[in-house]
Amino acid sequence: MSAGSAGVAPAGRARAARPSPAELTTAALAGDRRAVARLISLVEDESAALREVSALLAPHTGRARVIGLTGAPGVGKSTSTSALVGAFRARGLRVGVLAIDPSSPFTGGALLGDRVRMVEHATDPDVFVRSLATRGNLGGLSWATPQALRVLDAAGFDIVLIETVGVGQAEVDVASLADTTLVLLAPGMGDGIQAAKAGIMEIADILVVNKADRPGADHTYRDLVAAVRMAGGRAVGGTAAGGETEAGWRPEVVRLEAATGKGVPKLLDAIERHHDWLRASGELERRRLHRAAEEISQIALAGMRARLGRLNGAAQLADLARQVTSGRLDPYTAAATLLAAIPDPHLPRSG
Amino acid sequence: MSAGSAGVAPAGRARAARPSPAELTTAALAGDRRAVARLISLVEDESAALREVSALLAPHTGRARVIGLTGAPGVGKSTSTSALVGAFRARGLRVGVLAIDPSSPFTGGALLGDRVRMVEHATDPDVFVRSLATRGNLGGLSWATPQALRVLDAAGFDIVLIETVGVGQAEVDVASLADTTLVLLAPGMGDGIQAAKAGIMEIADILVVNKADRPGADHTYRDLVAAVRMAGGRAVGGTAAGGETEAGWRPEVVRLEAATGKGVPKLLDAIERHHDWLRASGELERRRLHRAAEEISQIALAGMRARLGRLNGAAQLADLARQVTSGRLDPYTAAATLLAAIPDPHLPRSG
Repeated sequence: MSAGSAGVAPAGRARAARPSPAELTTAALAGDRRAVARLISLVEDESAALREVSALLAPHTGRARVIGLTGAPGVGKSTSTSALVGAFRARGLRVGVLAIDPSSPFTGGALLGDRVRMVEHATDPDVFVRSLATRGNLGGLSWATPQALRVLDAAGFDIVLIETVGVGQAEVDVASLADTTLVLLAPGMGDGIQAAKAGIMEIADILVVNKADRPGADHTYRDLVAAVRMAGGRAVGGTAAGGETEAGWRPEVVRLEAATGKGVPKLLDAIERHHDWLRASGELERRRLHRAAEEISQIALAGMRARLGRLNGAAQLADLARQVTSGRLDPYTAAATLLAAIPDPHLPRSG
Repeated sequence: MSAGSAGVAPAGRARAARPSPAELTTAALAGDRRAVARLISLVEDESAALREVSALLAPHTGRARVIGLTGAPGVGKSTSTSALVGAFRARGLRVGVLAIDPSSPFTGGALLGDRVRMVEHATDPDVFVRSLATRGNLGGLSWATPQALRVLDAAGFDIVLIETVGVGQAEVDVASLADTTLVLLAPGMGDGIQAAKAGIMEIADILVVNKADRPGADHTYRDLVAAVRMAGGRAVGGTAAGGETEAGWRPEVVRLEAATGKGVPKLLDAIERHHDWLRASGELERRRLHRAAEEISQIALAGMRARLGRLNGAAQLADLARQVTSGRLDPYTAAATLLAAIPDPHLPRSG
């Protein structure tokens, strides 16, 4: 048997197959893509090593610019992501992509199929693409997303694009993670746009009318520009279609043909203008502090939930539930009893 | 000035305007509809009296049968609810309806308009209808729903119907609250049915094809029956289109014309069959224990969240967030620090 045959690995390779979290982190910081992928897997699996990895990564975070990209199914999110990746690469920037897949990894045909469009970047060592599955099909970012973002940030990616289907909670979540949020729309999606309008004004920094060569695109564009103007604020920078105002930032509206690349430079200009405004206004720091506070709170709540779950395993919750269904106890008193049984103020170890 | 003129109320009325939680509860238990309405308002407002009210109600709960009714917009939920209310009333049962309105109370025109169809029951003292607003427009039952349910249960309503739009989380939530969950569909809603099929099999106890006189209704009916059969389990009771099986219960499929009342008796029969199965199999107790455990956990988590929020107010979370954004701390260590600052194991008083 040669050392290279299947099933027999030399000692060096066997060791490389199970590197420690510290070794993985060191490799990822040095730009090792496999190490980056493995760290994100640790994050997704809620590995017990998560805290150690997180602590090792911390000093290297805070540099990446985070761009969120959301929109209804069919507006061309993956094509737009791919176009943006190409444009950032042309400027010499390293780009990470986190694609939030709202379906399970086993049934998510459509979205995984879309990833095919990223193939053009597949051989580029400075592009890293990863799909993250959400739990359940109810929208909402994977809770692993902020941690995966920290991995890519620490590994030196200048830009991290977070792409997610714009339905419900996911749309709001991506805006809370991103420095700059792009909301994609396409002409001819009728009441989808109407329905979206109310909510997207609150989360969009840039409104992108994709498929701008299609009939109705001008109508959609003018419609959005009018809506942005109505939202108020006199422009002092940016374009007539949004940008910096006396009161802050109002969404810029940009036309795009992601499939041909037409409009990509203007979109990048808008992203740059927004980034400049973020820095100059102090909003960048405010957003990042808010993001960190959210992340801490979520982890703390998850810890609390785990403690309640363990009590459940210890049958205390089941006993309380029995007392409630029999009318001997009300749920508030039961909840207080449950919480009183949590004496340990420290986060439980996960895994 | 007469005692009846505006702005001047006799002492008795002034006192009645601000009864204590104990007085309200006593009145509600005696069947006073205004007291029931006020208790639900206390619940919705997260009043500080909530715990007291909940404890007073507890010994009187556990009798109501809870029926969930969900489906996509346009399938005829309100008409069906109204038809069911009429049918239960004809059997001499008192009926409470909780309509979960996913839009805000100020913009929710469509759903509030639908309530008009309930007008026929408006003068019936043994029917109580209440809309509960959800927070945000992201689906999910109002957290107040389980508490409002307890109020109606204690006030002696035999049946509580919970009606909610079947989108995302709300659909799942209503199934976790109800003893029996009806999922409404209508013919000609095309891919809506396709999309729904995967999820509804898990939550539906009874599948109702409403508007059964419309073209395509037979196709929808047969389609669902085939889907239910594929889900497995040989029938030992119920009808050919679902019911009790060796393995448990598989959804019954029922045709309905809610607008004319045709099919209502058969729907009620299916509901009764399911209820009999729930009792005989022990599933009723299992579902109610699960519901109580969920409710207790949610209240406990809300208490935890409130504690974290107070720490936020005390600027500790903001300080931790600053350390995370500067890379001095990782979010896991920050979360552990935050939790360590929560020494009080008791639920905070709300309000």
